[in-house]
Amino acid sequence: MNEKVKSKDVLIETASRLFKVRGYCGVGLNDIIEESGIPKGSLYYYFPEGKEQLAIAAIDNTKKLVMEDIKHIFNKTSNLIDALQAYVYELSKVFGEGGDPIGSPIGTIAGEKHSTSEPIRLACEATFKSWQSIYTEKFLEAGYPEDQAKSLATVFHALTEGGILLALTMKSGKPLEAIAEKIPSLFIKKLVEK
Amino acid sequence: MNEKVKSKDVLIETASRLFKVRGYCGVGLNDIIEESGIPKGSLYYYFPEGKEQLAIAAIDNTKKLVMEDIKHIFNKTSNLIDALQAYVYELSKVFGEGGDPIGSPIGTIAGEKHSTSEPIRLACEATFKSWQSIYTEKFLEAGYPEDQAKSLATVFHALTEGGILLALTMKSGKPLEAIAEKIPSLFIKKLVEK
Repeated sequence: MNEKVKSKDVLIETASRLFKVRGYCGVGLNDIIEESGIPKGSLYYYFPEGKEQLAIAAIDNTKKLVMEDIKHIFNKTSNLIDALQAYVYELSKVFGEGGDPIGSPIGTIAGEKHSTSEPIRLACEATFKSWQSIYTEKFLEAGYPEDQAKSLATVFHALTEGGILLALTMKSGKPLEAIAEKIPSLFIKKLVEK
Repeated sequence: MNEKVKSKDVLIETASRLFKVRGYCGVGLNDIIEESGIPKGSLYYYFPEGKEQLAIAAIDNTKKLVMEDIKHIFNKTSNLIDALQAYVYELSKVFGEGGDPIGSPIGTIAGEKHSTSEPIRLACEATFKSWQSIYTEKFLEAGYPEDQAKSLATVFHALTEGGILLALTMKSGKPLEAIAEKIPSLFIKKLVEK
């Protein structure tokens, strides 16, 4: 990787880490420059529109990292329930105390900025749709019709986002563990749906 | 209600509304003073420690408002599934486009401040526990043993918080509607749990 691309990546990684700890609004460009050691001129070269543009790059980067993570876990098993459960157990480890979630905190930034930055809201919406499309695919593979697969993907996604919020607020992986344990009974195919 | 108590309430309501639109960090005490029309001296009389203390009062006020709302909806039916479904449909209306959620946005403030303000995190944690205790009670009434009732209350709470986040990010009540429609199949008592 050449030096220039590396600087851009370092800026995105630093911004992601700071947003995670202090929230979007709690981080200034000077904090990112200081923490990353990248000169101000480079920051404005890659992100001429400043913090919002850098945040969108951080969101986009996290979108891809999380997509790879979901696919990696889902590819380990063809069983729907095992795949969903394995992913939520993974979340319980990285969002529990002492864990280290990857990338920028999309849920948190979405909650904070949805009504004051339309570009950030759109980036978060696109991210959520990308993740949901992987979940939808998994429900389709398990034999659900398309409308059911999409609804269940939304339900599963809400469970993960809500579970992450509870884990962060309770400083504990336990809410996500409780969700993971309940995955089989929540998503087992019911007679009513057959 | 006397004038003094009213001023305090107006400050809490104004803070709640502004936090909802701009996030915790995006609101200054001067914005609250300007919007509420309450003099600075009164704000410091009721909240000598400033914005964090006012935010905690706003969170506590929302905790109570939402508890009343949940209880009001739950008291309309003794059926577990109907009660859970009615509450999520209610959320889909107030968090969908054009809706007007009550109080301060707890999930959003929790996501933004959990790692930088321990007093705010604790207030959000206490709020979440209060709501979960009402859900737990409802699962107990439906005949679940205590450990199951607690886990299912966590699952239901995660679904509501995640659903709210998706609704705000998508600017649509549809994610919460999808969750509401799936409540019967998600929470129907399975043979494996009997």
